[in-house]
Amino acid sequence: MTAAFLRRWPATLLLIAMLLLPAGGPRPALPAEGTSVPDRAVKDDPLARVAALILGEETASGGAYAKLAWLTDRIGPRLSGSPGAEAAVAWAKQEMLRDGLSNVRTEKVMVPCWVRGEETASIVSPVSHRLAVTALGMSDPTPAGGITAPVVEVASFDELHRLGEEVSGKIVLYNRPIIPGSRENGYGPAADLRYRGAAEAAKQGAVATLIRSLGTLNARLVHTGSHAYEKGVPRIPAAAISAEDAELIHRLAASGETVEVRLTLGCRLLPDVESANVIGELRGRTLPGEVVVIGGHMDSWDLGTGAIDDGTGVAASMEALRLLKKLNLRPRRTIRAVLFMNEENGIRGGRAYLETHQSEMEKHVTAIEADSGAGRPTGFSVNAGPGGDETIRRLAAHLKNISATGVEAGGDGGVDISPMLAAGVPLMGLRQEGGDYFHWHHSAADTLDKVDPRNLADSAAALAFMAYALADLERPLPRIPPEARKEQDY
Amino acid sequence: MTAAFLRRWPATLLLIAMLLLPAGGPRPALPAEGTSVPDRAVKDDPLARVAALILGEETASGGAYAKLAWLTDRIGPRLSGSPGAEAAVAWAKQEMLRDGLSNVRTEKVMVPCWVRGEETASIVSPVSHRLAVTALGMSDPTPAGGITAPVVEVASFDELHRLGEEVSGKIVLYNRPIIPGSRENGYGPAADLRYRGAAEAAKQGAVATLIRSLGTLNARLVHTGSHAYEKGVPRIPAAAISAEDAELIHRLAASGETVEVRLTLGCRLLPDVESANVIGELRGRTLPGEVVVIGGHMDSWDLGTGAIDDGTGVAASMEALRLLKKLNLRPRRTIRAVLFMNEENGIRGGRAYLETHQSEMEKHVTAIEADSGAGRPTGFSVNAGPGGDETIRRLAAHLKNISATGVEAGGDGGVDISPMLAAGVPLMGLRQEGGDYFHWHHSAADTLDKVDPRNLADSAAALAFMAYALADLERPLPRIPPEARKEQDY
Repeated sequence: MTAAFLRRWPATLLLIAMLLLPAGGPRPALPAEGTSVPDRAVKDDPLARVAALILGEETASGGAYAKLAWLTDRIGPRLSGSPGAEAAVAWAKQEMLRDGLSNVRTEKVMVPCWVRGEETASIVSPVSHRLAVTALGMSDPTPAGGITAPVVEVASFDELHRLGEEVSGKIVLYNRPIIPGSRENGYGPAADLRYRGAAEAAKQGAVATLIRSLGTLNARLVHTGSHAYEKGVPRIPAAAISAEDAELIHRLAASGETVEVRLTLGCRLLPDVESANVIGELRGRTLPGEVVVIGGHMDSWDLGTGAIDDGTGVAASMEALRLLKKLNLRPRRTIRAVLFMNEENGIRGGRAYLETHQSEMEKHVTAIEADSGAGRPTGFSVNAGPGGDETIRRLAAHLKNISATGVEAGGDGGVDISPMLAAGVPLMGLRQEGGDYFHWHHSAADTLDKVDPRNLADSAAALAFMAYALADLERPLPRIPPEARKEQDY
Repeated sequence: MTAAFLRRWPATLLLIAMLLLPAGGPRPALPAEGTSVPDRAVKDDPLARVAALILGEETASGGAYAKLAWLTDRIGPRLSGSPGAEAAVAWAKQEMLRDGLSNVRTEKVMVPCWVRGEETASIVSPVSHRLAVTALGMSDPTPAGGITAPVVEVASFDELHRLGEEVSGKIVLYNRPIIPGSRENGYGPAADLRYRGAAEAAKQGAVATLIRSLGTLNARLVHTGSHAYEKGVPRIPAAAISAEDAELIHRLAASGETVEVRLTLGCRLLPDVESANVIGELRGRTLPGEVVVIGGHMDSWDLGTGAIDDGTGVAASMEALRLLKKLNLRPRRTIRAVLFMNEENGIRGGRAYLETHQSEMEKHVTAIEADSGAGRPTGFSVNAGPGGDETIRRLAAHLKNISATGVEAGGDGGVDISPMLAAGVPLMGLRQEGGDYFHWHHSAADTLDKVDPRNLADSAAALAFMAYALADLERPLPRIPPEARKEQDY
């Protein structure tokens, strides 16, 4: 409705016209006979009725939380290649069958098998201190007796590069605090130091790297995370220390003394093992060959039980289909839940999914990832063709009573679905309040108690609703145009 | 001033009278020539001038924080009997000498020597989980292969006792969350479970005890603490697990299954070793034989660096005397800083001080302990004879600009000075805002970064001021009457 249009109509007439106009947009299918309709207000708007049914069922049943509790309490940590990861795959498949989903199956993914061993670190000079330490994922071990060397502290690669050969024979400490939500000082730049830090330091002759844990709370926690070596560059051990310990080293070094650290890591990388993505579906009513993917990642880091990263996404994705099945809400197209393996240290599951389903990519109408923790749902990120945002805004408006109506343009939806960008599949991410996410993620404190059951219920309901609404659109979301299909680095 | 008195005087006359009246209370000595007086407003009130000088010097110098940083960064954990504790004793003595204090000395205290060893715990049934665990201080070890037994969960001794022989052969888990500031659900009742829990459970045949860490933040932290065996009762191993792990066991047990845990502790108690209280003085101008004691405890638990418990109290006590010395503020009586050893697991330093100084107890006019963390100072607790509170209220009023004017009647001032209750010595405690004290205390996260430098400066200044004011009173605080000298249990 344009301003010019508004100026031509008297206000009263406009109001009457708006009340008489039919609700815009394509009509979703009605729920089957026998499903209850909460009240008169939503009776005349099928999507409002769908939202009400889904929210009511999830709020009352807490089904997503029950799934999450089982996943974290009964299975626990799920690092790719570990017995926990395999137990989670087996459980999810069984659970999807119990929920009555269709085409429940696993799809093979070869994953790295990295095993954490003993890990200790101490300042040995000018004073003695034990450090809270943990190896970064995929790190090589130290020699059995550890590595003892002076520490050089930097806050950026620029600073490292300026030091040149000065870091030769030394342990590089990346000491960069993160401020949640800050573009300049947020998780991104620090995660880049974590991911490439060992290779960059090794190029200048460093013998090991430490990084200040990427967390936003000083609770003497260590936060592990992904890290990669470069071909042709020495593979030096890489570990994270607690924020407190990084600050201690900083203070000691600031006095002008040389700080020496001994680091011992027993971790090792074993040959790849077979693992799987887990898949279950709600078959589409009229266009079953067209697919909306929803999903999170099944693997977690090994220190905690992966509740917020990404147990919540796994539980919400599984529960979304259970809800729709239970409520007999069957949209035009198929909704497929994919629980991706190996997001944390390889993205092998996301890549395997694309490879396995390459020929069907044109029939993938949208993919939504749920991997943003345990906060209240706030809406969705959307990367689609022209007009896609507006459609999502219109659909998300039905989630106004849980305030999950936000639409954020851009992004790739999530690491696991990002490979589908190349095929132009519209990519979305369930967005949630950040809250204390970076207090706990990748640490031993990523446990069930960090999840508010109501937030998870709302997230699962929001995901179920959006998946339903998208799968039932008359015309699917416009695809990402070729010029916008540039994949991001991870 | 009574209400009746007020009614008899017209308001204007009263105002004039108040302005003309001399400031009440005994006059403290003036600072020596050459010390600056900040402004006209405080010029006419010697105690106000003292407060201004002290606050100015500490705010500008940050001397207490510098001492604390050295104690925590350069010495670190200071468990009684450890090399760290001895290093702290040696450092404090040197530091007091450098600050120009009088009668700097150590006084022998025999202390327990308990050594932490390897410590691990896991749930082994119905599922496997590693637990975050730490031995309670003074615990006996488990056999080398650990103890594996079913867990029985209780929240109180009543609940334990009702179970009778049912706990025989089992591991008792005390699972009682604490709410800061709550009398019923605060630290006290839970600390009682920690202190006596192993003995009580052993009387009913338990083979070990676990306790939910006494902390107020779920950050997968373990909080150690004191614990005591009883003569004639089997000495079973006692450890703390993280809140998250206690909740996990609770959830698994709530499903009706038996939870089995394996606990391995390598800690052991060695023969007592010689240690010391460290003492330094500012000699009194006219009554040097009368003493105001100020102090905190030098020992700390071993997991963190004892910054908030009780590095701040040690630093504030040392700094209080440095400030007065530097400012040439010398009161009538002697102020003696005592850094007590072994508060955490024995109170041997507090008891040794009383024993060593028994004959001078009548000359001890007040003792003030600083052992309440790193929060903003709020005032003082006071246990004295009739009228004592009012005197402290009048003195503390000079701290109004840092809002440290609160007076709380009762208590014993602090664990280390509490033995002096028997001699009727007026006992005071520096009170501070609780804040996140119980998030960190007795855990690996009790580190320097938890201390706000400004709060510590204000605390040290408040302590220095109050010690000066008390030591300079014409008549000392009234002593605790004999009927009120009942010692509390620890």
